Amino acid sequence: MAGNVIPLHEASPGGAATVRLPGPFRMWRGATLPEVQLACETWGTLNAARDNAVLLFTGLSPGPHAASSSENPAPGWWEYMIGPGRPIDTRRWFVVCVNSLGSCFGTTGPASIDPRTHEPYRLDFPELAVEDIAASAHAALAAYGIGHLRAAVGASLGGMAALAYAMQFPDALDDLVCISAATRATPFAIAMRSLQREVIRSDPAWQGGYYPPGKGPREGLRLARKLGLMSYRSAVEWQQRFGRERVKTPVEAGAPFGVEFEIEAYLEHNAQKFADSFDANAYLYLSRAMDRFDAAEHGGTVEAGLARIRARRTLVIGVETDFLFPMQQQEEIAAGLYAAGRSVSFVPLASIHGHDAFLVDRERFAPVIERFFDAD
Amino acid sequence: MAGNVIPLHEASPGGAATVRLPGPFRMWRGATLPEVQLACETWGTLNAARDNAVLLFTGLSPGPHAASSSENPAPGWWEYMIGPGRPIDTRRWFVVCVNSLGSCFGTTGPASIDPRTHEPYRLDFPELAVEDIAASAHAALAAYGIGHLRAAVGASLGGMAALAYAMQFPDALDDLVCISAATRATPFAIAMRSLQREVIRSDPAWQGGYYPPGKGPREGLRLARKLGLMSYRSAVEWQQRFGRERVKTPVEAGAPFGVEFEIEAYLEHNAQKFADSFDANAYLYLSRAMDRFDAAEHGGTVEAGLARIRARRTLVIGVETDFLFPMQQQEEIAAGLYAAGRSVSFVPLASIHGHDAFLVDRERFAPVIERFFDAD
Repeated sequence: MAGNVIPLHEASPGGAATVRLPGPFRMWRGATLPEVQLACETWGTLNAARDNAVLLFTGLSPGPHAASSSENPAPGWWEYMIGPGRPIDTRRWFVVCVNSLGSCFGTTGPASIDPRTHEPYRLDFPELAVEDIAASAHAALAAYGIGHLRAAVGASLGGMAALAYAMQFPDALDDLVCISAATRATPFAIAMRSLQREVIRSDPAWQGGYYPPGKGPREGLRLARKLGLMSYRSAVEWQQRFGRERVKTPVEAGAPFGVEFEIEAYLEHNAQKFADSFDANAYLYLSRAMDRFDAAEHGGTVEAGLARIRARRTLVIGVETDFLFPMQQQEEIAAGLYAAGRSVSFVPLASIHGHDAFLVDRERFAPVIERFFDAD
Repeated sequence: MAGNVIPLHEASPGGAATVRLPGPFRMWRGATLPEVQLACETWGTLNAARDNAVLLFTGLSPGPHAASSSENPAPGWWEYMIGPGRPIDTRRWFVVCVNSLGSCFGTTGPASIDPRTHEPYRLDFPELAVEDIAASAHAALAAYGIGHLRAAVGASLGGMAALAYAMQFPDALDDLVCISAATRATPFAIAMRSLQREVIRSDPAWQGGYYPPGKGPREGLRLARKLGLMSYRSAVEWQQRFGRERVKTPVEAGAPFGVEFEIEAYLEHNAQKFADSFDANAYLYLSRAMDRFDAAEHGGTVEAGLARIRARRTLVIGVETDFLFPMQQQEEIAAGLYAAGRSVSFVPLASIHGHDAFLVDRERFAPVIERFFDAD
């Protein structure tokens, strides 16, 4: 394996490696980053022909720890999907998961030190595009000796990145797996994310983006995460799971208008965890990159952008209860790929788990992914 | 007309009257308000038999100015629905719209002066229930000499209040019109409102609820309103109306991560307007009352609560794209009324306008309301 292996950010203990790109990185909107490092985690073994590599892009918030390993036995964010005997079977595939450029788990982002100023980039980090997440991952694969992927896989932002990868490097992959993604965001999704960003910006601790390292707008992030969570699950799931249950143990005890229902406690618990782990500026950059992503930039129209994709096989999965990346957007991707002559498996799933279904609905997702990879 | 007519809050110029309830008002959860006044606006003429009165409850945010009048020619919030020759025809009906108890447009609420302390109530205002909105309106009708309604009408919170009215005073109305309401909120709706309240509470200007009059948490209200708006319309409508249009004239010029898309400018414009007109504590009280409302309090179960209603005719309207008060909740109301032996007209509408459709989708709503009232 090429690339430096150095200790990583504590959020990704063990298992992950740091890949330093060999030179400056030219970004999609024109700026150049003098140095880029990417936190990558791998599972399985690259074969001698180097033709069994699967690249996994992440959603907005996870790090590269997609599954447990001997180096890091903690369950990963896609634990049920990746491993020996699992749908993406690591006895057969060499899986690489990359912490997105612009994120904060060991990869270069707004919280990283700018080598020219020896200060964190903060808002001097150049504009980030989804294409940069894809292209930096492509460059990182070279450190593993991989020039061609058996498959690029991603959900949500990761699905956008997988699309960007396939549009930018049409000859660099055989198969494309695109889950709950979009060729471009709806105004509803933009509004949801814009409000999250505004809540962060409204926290005085944000300080116009120039907060001291580790002293960011925790309250703003916490509230933004709650809003994000509102759009990641579904009303049907919450009805079944929480109904109108009241909290049994006090949260925010005595606070007027504080937590009363279980659904509120669930959001609070999750938002607290997130606010302790994520960099606010990284969130802003990644969030806006999702708003601005537009497959039409790859050919003048969305259709022409999708027509650049030359993957041998494609799998497009959507979830009925996803209102952030709704089913129509998955249909658009599938139809566009089909119109361009690709082989398309389009699988609409009747999951109640909304946009995050790929993370939690093993019952529906595992067989679909397994069938696709086993048929290869 | 009985009741005092005194000058009102400037948010309801002309047209509205203030009705002072004759004595202390006992609230649903047990507290007593020593004095209650309600801002009411009326259209049409009460006939000699006093049997042509229609009571209109409002949603969370409007005042009593539902339609224009000679005293106040400004268009009201349900302008297309109320007036001579309109679906609720004021040549025939005497329409009374009440600013909800707990609100801030001339009606007693948290911003009102507590006569015992000569200070605003603020958080010393007692817990507000939807039942209090209904019961105080019922008491106000006596000032007009009305003991029995031809119809109670409401949408959203107003629909909950109309249900509460019909459950508390089953013999005091002939007809019930319930639009985009609920017997009790879903966890999704609770989460949406809880986060709005938390954003308000997180604004330092809220000062734990004890901000000086007129110096409330404007930023918190502004952000809360954006979040509210996210749940009042639909993704489909915004796709058609805004798509991915960029703003032509700058908003938040130069602000990093500021407004870029038209959808963001639309939300900003609306939220600014709202933040200038609404009292933050009133918002908190009304919002929580919606979370806590539960028809089961009227009989042990939702079904038993609905079975208290004895209206001669009922009309239940739902909107397919409403995800705050989804269609299943309208079906539950209609089914419950039907099971209790009521005459039920259930009308599901394929509007793209979401929860707020009753405000804007004249084409779909006007004929349904007109048919119901004309058949009477």
